[in-house]
Amino acid sequence: MELFYLETISSDMNEVKFSLDESRHIIKVLRKKNSDSIHITNGKGLEWVGEITDSNTRKVTAKKISNHVHKNNQANIHISIAPPKSNDRMDWFLEKATEIGISEITPIICDNSERKVIKPLRMKKILVSAIKQSNQFHLPKLNPIITFKQFVEYKYSDIKMIAHCRRGIKKGLHQISNIQSGLIILIGPEGDFSKREIEIAKENYYTEISLSGQRLRTETAGIVACNSIATLRKAFKRY
Amino acid sequence: MELFYLETISSDMNEVKFSLDESRHIIKVLRKKNSDSIHITNGKGLEWVGEITDSNTRKVTAKKISNHVHKNNQANIHISIAPPKSNDRMDWFLEKATEIGISEITPIICDNSERKVIKPLRMKKILVSAIKQSNQFHLPKLNPIITFKQFVEYKYSDIKMIAHCRRGIKKGLHQISNIQSGLIILIGPEGDFSKREIEIAKENYYTEISLSGQRLRTETAGIVACNSIATLRKAFKRY
Repeated sequence: MELFYLETISSDMNEVKFSLDESRHIIKVLRKKNSDSIHITNGKGLEWVGEITDSNTRKVTAKKISNHVHKNNQANIHISIAPPKSNDRMDWFLEKATEIGISEITPIICDNSERKVIKPLRMKKILVSAIKQSNQFHLPKLNPIITFKQFVEYKYSDIKMIAHCRRGIKKGLHQISNIQSGLIILIGPEGDFSKREIEIAKENYYTEISLSGQRLRTETAGIVACNSIATLRKAFKRY
Repeated sequence: MELFYLETISSDMNEVKFSLDESRHIIKVLRKKNSDSIHITNGKGLEWVGEITDSNTRKVTAKKISNHVHKNNQANIHISIAPPKSNDRMDWFLEKATEIGISEITPIICDNSERKVIKPLRMKKILVSAIKQSNQFHLPKLNPIITFKQFVEYKYSDIKMIAHCRRGIKKGLHQISNIQSGLIILIGPEGDFSKREIEIAKENYYTEISLSGQRLRTETAGIVACNSIATLRKAFKRY
């Protein structure tokens, strides 16, 4: 199944007209014909299923057959991450975290950050293409970039953790008892969080955690956090 | 700590002479001077620690101070994977799996494989740079590419699993009872394993598993397998 993303689609729309680009893709690449079915999501859970009524390569039209709202099974995980120097590495984090399951992403600027500017449109494009590819109906929320301090001082009701490689009394994720709750994890830049940042996080009730016995790159740490939580949530459902 | 890799280093060597390239890197990039220490591994557990005795940019020399053999804490995980079409995606799998922990990799050719040739030297280079970066002393074993059938018919004593997205009675990794044992996981190409391949695997005592509720790309599946096993091994050590 090929899933389309249309931010503005809603369950009360009876017809969809595709853009020039998408029309061409539907007919030339996917080789769809009249009366073939087409699936569209708004990234907020809706799956709108239609049937092609006009297969003109310039303006494909589909009329609604049915729609369904998918529950958000997506792990309630909010990762706040210092974007790595290389754009590529950030892209990989976004793509893989979305495939695996993440609900919210906040890029942060840290003491050791080398990158303080992000491209939100480019980033959103990657998230959209990852939900389409992995067949999901919920788009992760992407927040604007803010400073470490702004983020940490915000009053979230979730369980809050800071992952770092410095010395300290750190827990493993498997030792976090309320793993099924909403979770926030801070991931630092190349060069890690500064000692000062770790202190500020602790004052704001962040638990220090270690994600691995190995030294992980920033983007690997982000992916490992998402997948370890997904794994533990499944494993501890049994008990 | 900057870790160097030298396949031929052994615990009885009292002196190491670096190549022209590495000498330049040590002096010009790392700005090492005489009597600075240097750490070298052979990728088989040895950590050879030396002190620079000649800081000539063309031929750095170090004499041994101590050496230590690290136990292989590396997860005993063998992933047999159909290399994705894009070289980049294979590179990412190799880098991330090594960072997270993998002991052996076998590239396989499947019915739906689009890529049947690999570049072992390029692949080994990525493994080496990943152990250096993540500070590990054991290099994962990289086997030559073979066909799915050759691989599956080989008599391994490990717990054997095949991950796929087709219908079937599949377990989650958290339902595998001997997760601490040596494990082999087969990961298919874009387009998945064929039904015939799944049948052959089952005849050869492979358990069908599902890695995620989502549809994962090949390289993501490989990374998820490594990390989920590492997470479960840690979590179930407690009981």
